[in-house]
This record gives sequence, structure tokens and C-alpha cells, in this order.
Amino acid sequence: MPKTNSQHAKPVRASKAVLSGLMMPQDANPMGKVFGGSILKLIDNVAFVAAARHAGTSNCVTISMDKIDFKQPIEIGELVILEAKLHFTGRSSIVVGVNVYTENLDTGHRRQTNSCLVTFVAVDDKGKPREVPRLRPETEEEKQIYHQAEIRYQNRKNKIVRSRLPSGE
Amino acid sequence: MPKTNSQHAKPVRASKAVLSGLMMPQDANPMGKVFGGSILKLIDNVAFVAAARHAGTSNCVTISMDKIDFKQPIEIGELVILEAKLHFTGRSSIVVGVNVYTENLDTGHRRQTNSCLVTFVAVDDKGKPREVPRLRPETEEEKQIYHQAEIRYQNRKNKIVRSRLPSGE
Amino acid sequence: MPKTNSQHAKPVRASKAVLSGLMMPQDANPMGKVFGGSILKLIDNVAFVAAARHAGTSNCVTISMDKIDFKQPIEIGELVILEAKLHFTGRSSIVVGVNVYTENLDTGHRRQTNSCLVTFVAVDDKGKPREVPRLRPETEEEKQIYHQAEIRYQNRKNKIVRSRLPSGE
Amino acid sequence: MPKTNSQHAKPVRASKAVLSGLMMPQDANPMGKVFGGSILKLIDNVAFVAAARHAGTSNCVTISMDKIDFKQPIEIGELVILEAKLHFTGRSSIVVGVNVYTENLDTGHRRQTNSCLVTFVAVDDKGKPREVPRLRPETEEEKQIYHQAEIRYQNRKNKIVRSRLPSGE
Amino acid sequence: MPKTNSQHAKPVRASKAVLSGLMMPQDANPMGKVFGGSILKLIDNVAFVAAARHAGTSNCVTISMDKIDFKQPIEIGELVILEAKLHFTGRSSIVVGVNVYTENLDTGHRRQTNSCLVTFVAVDDKGKPREVPRLRPETEEEKQIYHQAEIRYQNRKNKIVRSRLPSGE
Amino acid sequence: MPKTNSQHAKPVRASKAVLSGLMMPQDANPMGKVFGGSILKLIDNVAFVAAARHAGTSNCVTISMDKIDFKQPIEIGELVILEAKLHFTGRSSIVVGVNVYTENLDTGHRRQTNSCLVTFVAVDDKGKPREVPRLRPETEEEKQIYHQAEIRYQNRKNKIVRSRLPSGE
Repeated sequence: MPKTNSQHAKPVRASKAVLSGLMMPQDANPMGKVFGGSILKLIDNVAFVAAARHAGTSNCVTISMDKIDFKQPIEIGELVILEAKLHFTGRSSIVVGVNVYTENLDTGHRRQTNSCLVTFVAVDDKGKPREVPRLRPETEEEKQIYHQAEIRYQNRKNKIVRSRLPSGE
Repeated sequence: MPKTNSQHAKPVRASKAVLSGLMMPQDANPMGKVFGGSILKLIDNVAFVAAARHAGTSNCVTISMDKIDFKQPIEIGELVILEAKLHFTGRSSIVVGVNVYTENLDTGHRRQTNSCLVTFVAVDDKGKPREVPRLRPETEEEKQIYHQAEIRYQNRKNKIVRSRLPSGE
Repeated sequence: MPKTNSQHAKPVRASKAVLSGLMMPQDANPMGKVFGGSILKLIDNVAFVAAARHAGTSNCVTISMDKIDFKQPIEIGELVILEAKLHFTGRSSIVVGVNVYTENLDTGHRRQTNSCLVTFVAVDDKGKPREVPRLRPETEEEKQIYHQAEIRYQNRKNKIVRSRLPSGE
Repeated sequence: MPKTNSQHAKPVRASKAVLSGLMMPQDANPMGKVFGGSILKLIDNVAFVAAARHAGTSNCVTISMDKIDFKQPIEIGELVILEAKLHFTGRSSIVVGVNVYTENLDTGHRRQTNSCLVTFVAVDDKGKPREVPRLRPETEEEKQIYHQAEIRYQNRKNKIVRSRLPSGE
Repeated sequence: MPKTNSQHAKPVRASKAVLSGLMMPQDANPMGKVFGGSILKLIDNVAFVAAARHAGTSNCVTISMDKIDFKQPIEIGELVILEAKLHFTGRSSIVVGVNVYTENLDTGHRRQTNSCLVTFVAVDDKGKPREVPRLRPETEEEKQIYHQAEIRYQNRKNKIVRSRLPSGE
Repeated sequence: MPKTNSQHAKPVRASKAVLSGLMMPQDANPMGKVFGGSILKLIDNVAFVAAARHAGTSNCVTISMDKIDFKQPIEIGELVILEAKLHFTGRSSIVVGVNVYTENLDTGHRRQTNSCLVTFVAVDDKGKPREVPRLRPETEEEKQIYHQAEIRYQNRKNKIVRSRLPSGE
């Protein structure tokens, strides 16, 4: 639990990250629909920036990405906007929530197409988990999100006692 | 259920796909660990090939990707091998299982790093779901996988009756 | 002056755009310093998003980019953050200001490395200039920026009467 | 000749490699026909994987690629499948045969479009040729291919005695 | 023979093409040696430009690339310069010779690393071979090269009478 | 002034650089017009080659790029040709002029689309400015260009005495 974390806590807003990209021909299959994989790469990128900012190191590795739905196909020429913010931190793990929006530049129409949770672990130069600053949720929404993520995190941890997860986690 | 599907059934082996790629500097963060996003893009690619082969059309769009773990970091210079095979087909949806292996070309050491389920839906030129050939599992393992995927599929379908899923599904 | 523009005016905040990118090996020369050209490409990208949002069309073409200084080299592994906002609009031209910041993810240190003006013209399907919504500066700073850009724009226009600039300009 | 090679022989099947890629807009000229150069890059990639696997090192450099014909143009959206297997090994050189197939995902039609021989040499950290395991052909076809490659190899060697080829070859 | 070609002959110098590229991390294997495949892609590119210029159409497809040797490894950070000029034209085919030089920007040392012949065929919108302007060699060297290429071309044509070569060739 | 420069002077022709590239789908916005940013990246690339050749080191960093106009849109499928030559050298700075031409491969029509000045500074391993060879203009045109660049350079220097420019400049 992050209570004993000796580093200063950091608020959620301090590590928020935004990334936007125009969907180009190389992001789509030959029929012109954007590959899920292109979106996943952007999700991992923006989440990495938020995680690295919070951890104070770019030595952060993705350890899991939650189920993600792509019910609304994205077209070439649409702008994809990704917003990442931290949901929760463990001792060395960082849970980042990413919301994906698609904006049609011709109509201005903007819709949320996906959301996804990505978990990172901060490591030292030898690849061992290292402690990260505690996350300090400030708004009511941030506190709720933190609380829910903490419950999921504890449940998962109880289930996987003695599993192969990195020892610091 | 696929029973009423008028097209000929196709065996699992007919659409198996393999893709391999050498992890290059552009696939990694500045610390040299491969981005999860680079692997996710390859997973979506190989799964797409298997789905398109089975459906007999490249008009297949990713509709979901299951939770995926990246507990074992992959290094630049390692070979990533991805094997995709169909688990199950609905009326127009296709569930593809992907296994990801990493091979160190210097030591020959090969380890499974990830596995993931990707679901596609085949669409016609107007983007409406279109029927796909029924999947015919042949080996015992294929039948078990098919059966389990079918149960998950039915459960999810029952849960989301009246949801926003494409009507054909 | 845009006074006769029949379309509704849009505030500056409506088209602000942000883009961030991690500098990767392919963005740098073999010595590890990021190519100016990689930054220029990102500047053009983020400015395009702001211009297209304001114009309500992605049919916007870059017509000029102002002198830009790169006095502070950027390193691989640094995060580049680009913020674009409109300065001024003519009848069919859009002047976008871009500020470039570089953030060291390990130290959190952030510095402004560049700023640049990019001018676009919105065109119709035949490539002819088309009218764009008038820009409505709201804050004091936005008004000052608008005023200065307007003076520069009028001076340039007077100098180039009978030049080869698109007729609508 | 590989007879005196002290390392264990490896069978052909141990280093076989498969790579598949969907031809995307960036692989083609503006008319939509895939560039020969895009295929050549994939050929070199898959052959490299087979060579590195056999040599037990990724320190393998391409030293020649045989004449290759592209009589059948490949279209964007087609799947290219490349299969590489070793034909022959010299003391430090490795001859890899690559077969290229193109599959139309909409019709399932698959045709062989090219085949090519690529020769690598394994080197040590100083770039000097290093010995590679002997190749052990097992099937009748593999033995014939090996035998023919050996004749070509000896002919070439006789012709170029005292030439600038790396001394170990 | 091109004698009956109704279009005006064009001199060799009219279609000469030069391309240069700095070898970047993404062009090399993890050991830092440039992939043969990266050079082959550049060779096909520069030869295409020369062929398209002569043919007066970018509707040119690569039909073969001759054996190429890579005896001198190229390093990341080196500049690769490719020079393409036409050797010979048939009725619709174009033979382009490419010389590849590598320049070390720190020492200024420049060496020829490869040379290669690439053959294109110009096609019309239906993909059928179309006539190209006759090549007019002007210097002694150009005439010799033309003559030798013509002999090779005739020999190959005699050998493959009734083969699957496009009828116009 | 370069008079006291101890290194041998080098003529303009010794460092001239040419680069050509075919505009591909990934270089353009979804409407098919090439992004200004793609051209700027090529300009920086070709100018870097000329600067590095003259300086005798690839340790050259872009410090500024002059205002550039893009009045003539470039289409996908057009060939862009960039020619770079030195205009002037200071003690450690190098001013490179780049002319950009666009060639339509189908019509052979070639037009100058842009020109731009890029300034580099050569640095040593610690990033400090290092002396570069003096430029020796030979033709009348080169001398005029040199003279004009020198005046601009002196004016700018006088204006920015005590500014934050690297001390050696």
C-alpha cells in the first residue's frame, strides 16, 4: 500500500497527458478503416507519458492493458485525441486510464470511441521495480476512481499471492 | 448460432497465420524496452490476416481486444513470433487467439511472452455485418477451445441483449 | 478585414490543439541530436489541426512557415509538447502560433525550445481559396496577438498588391 | 568445406522462417503497384532470421542477393508471405532460399510471385568471419538443393581464388 | 529493336537520377550494420525515378533486379548516394544501372559499395506494356554500355521465346 | 570573420548535395496535398548533408530555418528534388541555401516550389561550437551570394551583441 511511500505525493493533474494524431493511410487496412493496432500503439504512448511524468523516470514498462472495445470504426482523415490520467499507484506500479476521442475535422463532430486502462511498473537500471511517488487524488471524481482502482488492485493481489508478479508489486 | 450458416464450414488450419518481426530501435522506448504498443500492433495485424482468410474478405474490423499482460519485457534485437488461429465464429464475428513468442537469436532461447484474444466482425461495403463461414474445429484441442469460446460468447450475448452491438451479432 | 465574413465567428479556445511526441532514434541524426526537420513536421501537424478545426474542413494547405530558431538542441528520449492556437484569420487564410516545449521525463524539467507562426489557406474541392469563419479573440492577450498579426498581415498585403498570392487573399 | 566444422550440425527445419505482411499504401508507387524494393526488404528480413537462427548469432551480414524477377505485379491490400530456409552453409557463409507468395485475402487465391537466394556471412565482434554450424539436409529435396548449392559455391570459389572475398570464405 | 519506335529518342542524361540518404537506426540490424534490404529499397527507388522520367509516366513496374553484392558493410550514420542512369531500352522495357556510393561524413571518405541493374516495364492503365521513347546514348561510354546491354537483351529474348514474358517484350 | 580561420578553405561545389523523394500517401494530408512539414524535413536533411560535408563532421545541429513559402501545393506522386549548397560560413556556423523543385513524372514538367536558408552550427563532442573550414566562393554567383549572406550575418550579429547566441558565433 502506498501509505508508507517516502516520496512526496503528486496530484493527478501533474501528470495528465494529451496526444493527438491524424489517421493516415498507413494506419488503416486497405479498406480504409483504421487498424485497432494503430490505436493501441497511441494508447500505450500517451499512457507512457503520464506514467513517466508521475514516476519521474522514463524507465517505465507496460505490464498490462485491459480489454478494449472498438465498436465504432475510425476513418482515415479523422483526428484521434487521447487523454491519459493516473487512476492509482501501487508501490512501483502505475495504473493509467486513457480516453480516446475521434474528431471529424470537417464536421467538428467529436465522439468517445474507446477507453482503456494501462498498467506500468517503474524499474531501476537493473530492471527491478522501484518505488514511485504516491498519487494524490484531489477532486471527488479522482477520489472515486482511485478508490475503485485500489479495490481492483487489492483483489488481484490477493488472488495472485505467490504468483510470478515482480516481487515489489 | 452458426448452425444455420449457409456457407461451407472451414477448418481452423485453413486460416492459421504466422508473422515475425525483429524488434528495432523504433519499437522501443529510449531505455531499450519494447513498447507494449508495438506488440499490440503486431497482434492486431496477425489476427487480421487469420480473420480475413477465414472470412474470405479483408473487410474485417477489430471490435475488441482482451486484457493482455506484458510481464516479460522484450528487448531490441529480439525476434517476436506471433501465431494466430481462430477460436470461434459467430454469425459475422470472428474470435482469434494469438500467441506471442520471443526468440533471442544469439542464444536460441524462445519463450512465450503473451497471449491475447482479438475479435473481428466481417462487414460488407456499407459497413453492415455480413455472414462468415462456420468454423470447423478438428483436433480435440480445437474443439475444447471452440466450446469454451462459445460459452463466453453466449454469456456475453445474453448480458448485452438490447445493447448497442451491431444487430447481426 | 473579416468584417463582411458571413459565417459565425469562433473563439480562439475552440480550435486550440496540443500534440506531444517522444523523441525516438529515428528523429535524430547519428549523434543523437533531434533533427530540426522532425520538429518542423510536428509543428506543421499541430498547426494543421488547429487550422482545420477553425476552418471546419481538413482542406487546409500550409502556405508559409516563419523563421524558426533551434538554439537549444533536443535529445532522444525527451518529450516534445506542441501547443497551437490561432493568432489571426483573413478571408481564407489562417495564422497559427505554435509553442514548442521540451520536457525531460527523468527530471521533470520543462523548457520552451521554439515558437513559430504557420499560415494556412482553406481551399474548396477545386483548390480555390474559400472563406473561413472569423476569429474572435476573447482575452486581453488574444486581442493583442490578433491586433499585431493584423498589422503584419495588412503590411504584407499592401506590399504584394498585384503579386501572385491567391486572389482571395 | 564444412566437413572439418567442429560445431554440431543443424537440420534445415531448425532455422526455417516465415514472415507475412499486408501490402500497404506506403509500399507502393502512386499507381498502386507494390515497389520491388519493398519486397526485397522483406526478403532480406526473413532470410536474416533464418541465417541468424542457424548461426546462433544476429551478427550476420548480407553479402549478396541473386537476380530476382518481378513478373507478376503485387497490389496494395494483398498479403505477402515469405518462407526462408537454408540451402547450404560454407565455413562462415550461409545461403538462404526465399520463396515469396502473394495471397489475395478476398478470393483466397495464392500464387508464387518470386524466389530468391540470399547469402550471409556470420561475423564476430570485430567484423571478421566466424565459423557457423554445418547444415544437415534431411529430406531428399533438401539434399538435392544442398548438393546443387555446393557445386555453385565451389565453382564460384575456384573462379575467385585470390579475390577480395573475406578470407574465411 | 527500338528503331521503329515512333516517339522521339531521349538522351541518357535527360533521365539521370540521384538520391541520397543518411543511414539511420531503423535501417540497420541490432548490431548496427545496415540491412541489405534497406539499400535494395533505395536502389529500386532511384531506378524508378530514372525509368519514369524516360518513359514519361510513373506507370513503371520493376520486373527484375540483377544479382547484387554487399561485400562492404555500411554503418549507421554513413551517407548513401545512389546514381541511376539508363543503359538500354527495349520496346516497353527500360534497363537502369545504379551505382551506390557510401560517404563517411566525418572523414569525407567515399567508396563505391555496390552496383546493380534494374529492369522496368512501362504499362498503360490496364497494365499492358506500352511503348517507351528510344534511348539515345551520346558519349562513348554510354554507347558501349548500350551495346553490351543490347546483346544481353537479345540473348535473353532468344532464350525465352514462347516464355511467359509480357508479349510486347 | 573567417579570415583567421586556420583550416583550408573549401569551395562551394565540394559540399553540394542533392536529394530526391517521391511524395507518397504518408506525406500528405487526407485530401492528398503534401504537408509542408514533409518538405521541411527533407530540406533539413539535404542541408545537413551539405553542412556536414563542409564541416567534415556530422556533428552539425540546425540552429535556424528561414521563413519559407508554400504557395504551390505539391501532389502525391510528384517527385521532389532538393538541391543544397553553402552560402556562407562564420567561425562555426554554416548557412545553407536549399532550392526545392517539383517534377511531375507523367508530364516531365518541373517547377521551383520553394527556397529556404538553413543555418547549422558545428559542435564538438561536448556540444561546444567548433571552427569550420572557410568557404571559398568561386563563380560570380557564388561570390554575390556569399557577400549578401555576409552582410546579413554581420547585421544580425551587431543586433544581438550580448544575446544568448553560442559565444563562438
